[in-house]
Amino acid sequence: MTHLDAAVLQHGGALDAAIARFGGHREEWLDLSTGINPAPPPLPPLSPSVWQRLPEAALERRAIEAARTAYDAPPEAGIVPAPGTQALIAVLPSVLPPCHVAILEPTYSGHRTGFETAGHGVTGFTSLDAVPAHATVVVVVNPNNPDGRTCEPADLLALADRLAARGGLLVVDEAFADADPAHSVAGATGRPGLLVYRSFGKFFGLGGLRLGFALTTPDLAAQLRARLGAWAVSGPALAIGAGWLGDAKHRADVRASIARQHALLAETLAAAGLETVGGTSLFQTVRHPGAEALFGALCRRHILTRPFAYRSDWLRIGNAADAAAARRLGAALDAAFGEIAA
Amino acid sequence: MTHLDAAVLQHGGALDAAIARFGGHREEWLDLSTGINPAPPPLPPLSPSVWQRLPEAALERRAIEAARTAYDAPPEAGIVPAPGTQALIAVLPSVLPPCHVAILEPTYSGHRTGFETAGHGVTGFTSLDAVPAHATVVVVVNPNNPDGRTCEPADLLALADRLAARGGLLVVDEAFADADPAHSVAGATGRPGLLVYRSFGKFFGLGGLRLGFALTTPDLAAQLRARLGAWAVSGPALAIGAGWLGDAKHRADVRASIARQHALLAETLAAAGLETVGGTSLFQTVRHPGAEALFGALCRRHILTRPFAYRSDWLRIGNAADAAAARRLGAALDAAFGEIAA
Repeated sequence: MTHLDAAVLQHGGALDAAIARFGGHREEWLDLSTGINPAPPPLPPLSPSVWQRLPEAALERRAIEAARTAYDAPPEAGIVPAPGTQALIAVLPSVLPPCHVAILEPTYSGHRTGFETAGHGVTGFTSLDAVPAHATVVVVVNPNNPDGRTCEPADLLALADRLAARGGLLVVDEAFADADPAHSVAGATGRPGLLVYRSFGKFFGLGGLRLGFALTTPDLAAQLRARLGAWAVSGPALAIGAGWLGDAKHRADVRASIARQHALLAETLAAAGLETVGGTSLFQTVRHPGAEALFGALCRRHILTRPFAYRSDWLRIGNAADAAAARRLGAALDAAFGEIAA
Repeated sequence: MTHLDAAVLQHGGALDAAIARFGGHREEWLDLSTGINPAPPPLPPLSPSVWQRLPEAALERRAIEAARTAYDAPPEAGIVPAPGTQALIAVLPSVLPPCHVAILEPTYSGHRTGFETAGHGVTGFTSLDAVPAHATVVVVVNPNNPDGRTCEPADLLALADRLAARGGLLVVDEAFADADPAHSVAGATGRPGLLVYRSFGKFFGLGGLRLGFALTTPDLAAQLRARLGAWAVSGPALAIGAGWLGDAKHRADVRASIARQHALLAETLAAAGLETVGGTSLFQTVRHPGAEALFGALCRRHILTRPFAYRSDWLRIGNAADAAAARRLGAALDAAFGEIAA
């Protein structure tokens, strides 16, 4: 048994579980199990009022307008900040009437969980050419997690328009789009039938901050906002979000840093002879017949990656923060291959 | 017109609106419009991982167990951390089947808004002796905001048991209970039919942090948790919450500080000859036939208080942080009385 409990893995507590099973001190572990930028910029100073006061409407408006700029969304888009896109994924199903939901799978499981929890009928499908005809809500993660598959914006917008014509909705989760926004449809939000999620924490490396956005019609945005309740996002998240999203130079610097991480990971995996299924700028997914054993062998070297219950030959590996971490991964991969071949 | 737009007031953005209308720089304003401790302890140092990593299960468990200790909740209570109690107030209605909700009013309007948004039938009632017979969900804020009315724990628990017998639920919002927990029923949570909300930010003075808890049955706790989604609370909120709630000496120090603020405010209001309707340790509500004019006169002196659309003779005044702020309030009240009498 090399797999950890799936529920634990999904809670982001996989490192705790891995330490409990494989030992080692927390600081000794290299956690490559997430798709979060491992080298965030230094935190800006925060005024005491950001912590002390209920988040103010003016601060929230600044964060919203910074997001509009960063995501290239038009003035007519309704934008809702939330404590992470996961909060939006959890709350969207409760504002929609009972509907047939089709999800382009395999992908991030939170979408299916959210719709099923709220009692909607959910089916999976595997190609944008074969969207189930009865679906009124369609979910596409673009680029996809974990295989990096991308959909063309023109195809997505045509689908959104078809769904809109029958009162439906296309949900495009762009959690990993920031580092390479070429396939983003955020610029088309505001029209009926389209909702886009963007994640702040993954790109900027602040997964603990909890900040994400929905971009959609003003009407649906208002419904999501009402269900999240007032003051949904913390003061520190709004302040850091407004500052960093509103600074084009800062965004470009982070994008360049992630591109360097990406190149480093690609080199490391290639040097280890690993076949890449696909990925995004923040992680890569490899295929190997012994992926489960490889996961365990890396854990014994205190390196955590992400296995998949539905694809035992896949392993997702997140960016290393720097050359030293990439070298450690490369050496561990070599040793792990020796071990599992033995 | 001295009232500000009600929606703006409820969003916690009242200070922005007041500045827009009455001028002055933000730092010149004394904001007494909230019930948040105005003198929080210094922030503890936070490790980078708290910001960078998805909030981990182990950290969340530490925050939950610290809350269990601080709120004196039994081992059988299910405890859900949330990004503020408002998030729980917004999400609870979506996990309950359609029901008749009765709210002990007047009180914090978020409860009515939450249940109405989700499509439940809501009625108000004015005394615990006259709970509407058809209600299956009853909401009581204890101590109440804004009049400070308290209900006896024995009466609340008897009501919870009656509601439980017919599959109902008593919701007790104890947002202002921390400074004086004598009337709390948190110690009785875990039994069917009872849910208690506790607020971290009000007592500890960190309204921008967004942290609150629901204490209830494990089953209802699991449903609330599922609707909030994974990683609902930020890493900084969980870390600060676990530290401060888990430290009895720290809680006692904050309670003593709030008691001093409370005495200072009581003296100031008495010296100004104001009649107090009631209040909690964090605010007091005064009655005055010219309350609307008084609100405006205080705004002209850049002191913000909280008026009520449904009681034009009430004004809620939050604690001043220190003696200097209390003196400023006292002087402004004297001058305001002179102005509105003229």
